[in-house]
Amino acid sequence: MAITRADCHDLDVRDPLRELRDEFSLPPGVVYLLGNSLGALPRRTAERVAHTVETEWGLHLGESWNTAGWWDLPESTGDRIAPLIGAGPGEVLAGESTSVNIFKAVAAALPLRPDRRVIVSDLDNFPTDRYVVEGAARALGSYEIRDIGSGDSLDGVLGNDVAVVLLSHVDYRTGAMRDVDAVTAQVHAAGALMIWDLCHSAGAVPVKVGAADFAVGCTYKYLNGGPGAPAYIYVAPRHQEAARNVISGWHGHAAPFGFEPHYRPAGGVRRFATGSPPVLAYSALNASLDIWEQVDMREVRAKSVALTSLFVELIDQLHPDLALVSPRDPERRGSQVSYRHADGYPVIRALIDRGVVGDYREPGLMRFGFAPLYLRYVDVHDAATTLAEVLGKELWRDEQYQRRLTVT
Amino acid sequence: MAITRADCHDLDVRDPLRELRDEFSLPPGVVYLLGNSLGALPRRTAERVAHTVETEWGLHLGESWNTAGWWDLPESTGDRIAPLIGAGPGEVLAGESTSVNIFKAVAAALPLRPDRRVIVSDLDNFPTDRYVVEGAARALGSYEIRDIGSGDSLDGVLGNDVAVVLLSHVDYRTGAMRDVDAVTAQVHAAGALMIWDLCHSAGAVPVKVGAADFAVGCTYKYLNGGPGAPAYIYVAPRHQEAARNVISGWHGHAAPFGFEPHYRPAGGVRRFATGSPPVLAYSALNASLDIWEQVDMREVRAKSVALTSLFVELIDQLHPDLALVSPRDPERRGSQVSYRHADGYPVIRALIDRGVVGDYREPGLMRFGFAPLYLRYVDVHDAATTLAEVLGKELWRDEQYQRRLTVT
Repeated sequence: MAITRADCHDLDVRDPLRELRDEFSLPPGVVYLLGNSLGALPRRTAERVAHTVETEWGLHLGESWNTAGWWDLPESTGDRIAPLIGAGPGEVLAGESTSVNIFKAVAAALPLRPDRRVIVSDLDNFPTDRYVVEGAARALGSYEIRDIGSGDSLDGVLGNDVAVVLLSHVDYRTGAMRDVDAVTAQVHAAGALMIWDLCHSAGAVPVKVGAADFAVGCTYKYLNGGPGAPAYIYVAPRHQEAARNVISGWHGHAAPFGFEPHYRPAGGVRRFATGSPPVLAYSALNASLDIWEQVDMREVRAKSVALTSLFVELIDQLHPDLALVSPRDPERRGSQVSYRHADGYPVIRALIDRGVVGDYREPGLMRFGFAPLYLRYVDVHDAATTLAEVLGKELWRDEQYQRRLTVT
Repeated sequence: MAITRADCHDLDVRDPLRELRDEFSLPPGVVYLLGNSLGALPRRTAERVAHTVETEWGLHLGESWNTAGWWDLPESTGDRIAPLIGAGPGEVLAGESTSVNIFKAVAAALPLRPDRRVIVSDLDNFPTDRYVVEGAARALGSYEIRDIGSGDSLDGVLGNDVAVVLLSHVDYRTGAMRDVDAVTAQVHAAGALMIWDLCHSAGAVPVKVGAADFAVGCTYKYLNGGPGAPAYIYVAPRHQEAARNVISGWHGHAAPFGFEPHYRPAGGVRRFATGSPPVLAYSALNASLDIWEQVDMREVRAKSVALTSLFVELIDQLHPDLALVSPRDPERRGSQVSYRHADGYPVIRALIDRGVVGDYREPGLMRFGFAPLYLRYVDVHDAATTLAEVLGKELWRDEQYQRRLTVT
């Protein structure tokens, strides 16, 4: 039996998260399915950032390093991210980009396994993960990179030469999700260390870093921290004494205002700080984290599964030929759904022209992200019916959609 | 003959930069002498940042990576910083912290001198410079660090084992300024590469990187970019093909949206980009750079020399016993003046309590920065007379000023 828009409206009325949509400033007339790329703007963010600019900076100036807590932002913000990835206080430090944090995590992990020379990475990792590993392997010694294929298991890969394994929890293209506990256990059984990239799961899936050694992630996707918002690094407490921050700047020093001649790492995760934190960016992120403190991640996950499943079901009904690339089983899927189409690029452009914003990734992948805090079931219905219309009527063949724009 | 406040007022009336003060939002009743630490808030910044938050992010979302130029921010912002350090377009990339950029510069420079194993640094470098060099020397191979003493010349230090020299243009404590051209020439004559830290000079002194190989600097001091604003790296054009970014993230890839399996560096300085730029922080910085485009750096320097010289002259008159630590010759001085006093800490606290904001640095140094864009000659007069009063009447002996607060 076909799912109607009225059915979806009923789901919205019963949605325990329905009031959270009002927390966001969404562009009018748009179904925004790129919360997996750049999260929407929380309404409270503008005011918070203005306060940081005009009062903390403009009025109190350098005093705010103490009185407004600027100095502690990497730790205080990290402590607020921690519950979203199953970590505790003092285990997460917010700052810099995911790429820089991957570099720090890899550089900290390798010396903990000094007799091993292999880094295992996944061809499905987001490219920057692989690129950063390549640079680190070259610069930090003679390390070898062993890539595993798309979605492959680690069976047969984990010899006693493997120092570190770096994998994405959720695949950025397909939305396929790995089992954190099982993979970490397998890596540990081989004597290697596990680094998880949580960019595409935190804020959509109740992440538990569990026994992981390190983890990194960004905050500008499902966490709605703003474009280029501070990323984060998780360091397991058992490594915090031995692990070193390779970019050993003064913000990670044990006595930063002692101006000692030599570097002496701060205790705990603070040693992974490096330079002055971009305070305005932290301000925006902290506004968003206020919202996350009101949210039960189990409800977020339940709604995420319901939204993605509804989209798949509607496409099954309306345009069953479209090739689903994401796992059909929601237990193995993050909060995005990807389809393959030879003309995916013009299809996405035709969709955007009709107010449904997804994106395109080579080769032939159309990605649709479902951010449970601000998406409604009727939005999913409207997106699916619009996609089916664009495909059914071949509206994407219109010449205006064929021309390549710069893609991001 | 004593310099009166009326004399200073006359100087303000004739100051060609006097109207720029109106560009800044300054706290009422305060003479702010810490522009060398955190620059004041430009009035236009709040509106610019609000536009970035509400319109670019809130309304246009991910489109802004193209339409608002987010993707190009590291280069476009770098090109606006370039004239302030005597560099050209395509030679400066804005991003991350000074510390991270020092790491990148050192890691890029060392492989360009593969047979040399020594990094020369200065004990007067800001501590993070030394700390980052220590971490890089350990992680990137077996490098030795050779420290030179406070303000010492490089004579006798530059053997044929020296790969890289890292020095601050202006000393963060004393304000003493090195001769960029002479030192760079000396370093090159020894076959080594020169990295300059411009944190304490750019925006106060007309910097010319000249023949330097690399340079780094921050933008939150004299450039007024905001707390933790993006730093920058300069890479001499002759090195841009050979120099590698050790933190090889996707933003520095030749085809970032090709999602190629391997890292391939972008041409030019862009390869020194790593991860997603903190867009809000760039927005604030770019508002400030609007002001810099209206300014003639020779006028800025002339006023800087006049302000610091006036302060020294007034203290000579009013409290001649106070020990000047900065060079008395303005040609050898940046835009700050430092004095040594055994009880410098309570003196600074007593000053702050009277509306004159300087800061204290161990051992015994009282620092006063003079930002020519928003300071008046009468401010200098008021600061000097207040300092002389605090010292003359020993107001700093009051118990309330003895207790240590957290210092930044």
